[in-house]
Amino acid sequence: MEIERKFLIQHLPDHLEQYPCLEIQQAYLSTKPVVRIRRQNTEYYLTYKSAGLLAREEYNLPLTKESYEHLKSKADGIVITKKRYCIPYLSYTIELDLFEGALQDLILAEVEFPSRQAALDFVPPRWFAKEVTYDPKYQNSYLALHTQCF
Amino acid sequence: MEIERKFLIQHLPDHLEQYPCLEIQQAYLSTKPVVRIRRQNTEYYLTYKSAGLLAREEYNLPLTKESYEHLKSKADGIVITKKRYCIPYLSYTIELDLFEGALQDLILAEVEFPSRQAALDFVPPRWFAKEVTYDPKYQNSYLALHTQCF
Repeated sequence: MEIERKFLIQHLPDHLEQYPCLEIQQAYLSTKPVVRIRRQNTEYYLTYKSAGLLAREEYNLPLTKESYEHLKSKADGIVITKKRYCIPYLSYTIELDLFEGALQDLILAEVEFPSRQAALDFVPPRWFAKEVTYDPKYQNSYLALHTQCF
Repeated sequence: MEIERKFLIQHLPDHLEQYPCLEIQQAYLSTKPVVRIRRQNTEYYLTYKSAGLLAREEYNLPLTKESYEHLKSKADGIVITKKRYCIPYLSYTIELDLFEGALQDLILAEVEFPSRQAALDFVPPRWFAKEVTYDPKYQNSYLALHTQCF
């Protein structure tokens, strides 16, 4: 079960370059449930996510580069590219996504929690802006199909 | 981990109609690893299987009818249809697949085991013909792309 909250970001923290960064490319074969392919640096995954906003079942299964490229040719909408900075905060890791290409200027932060209670208790840092956990328009699967909204 | 052996069948057992029967339709989005969609009566699944012949990792994840139909439009090769009879045998269940459409006349039996040792110890019933566990040509993912071989 993946439990996470999601926030818009207007101002980036200083010295982003000190944090680990992943180059992510992802696309969607289905949105309900989510069937997603992702390249993360040199690793490739098929991800399945059940419906839900705060909490959902998630499976990450390995793909080869070849199967990733094959499945990418079947994707709906755009291929999302983004840089993900992994920033330690309290006992958590903030995943700060800087979108590129058709979605550039969009910045989202996600934090994953071990329980619903931990998610509710979380106090975001001051540089987080509006929370969008419950706004389906900020799901990457929605963004892949509706780039014209940005 | 799915551990199974597979056999060709030339002669069907008597009174097949006494056994539970599933109407199966399935198709493939990827073959290495296997990414398969399956309709089984009125249930819909996305299945992921790692590489392997006797033993492989397998995940079965629920789809809606709508997501199944959407993913089916992206399939490679044919949509396989078959009737699966589930026949009790010793402590196991024989899955007897009678293929239809482009693959009609093909009959395969599969038996799933709790361990590699149980798979090795299995003594097939007399009505089983040649074992094809290690022949990749009898994998459904291969059959979907190579119907002209039958």
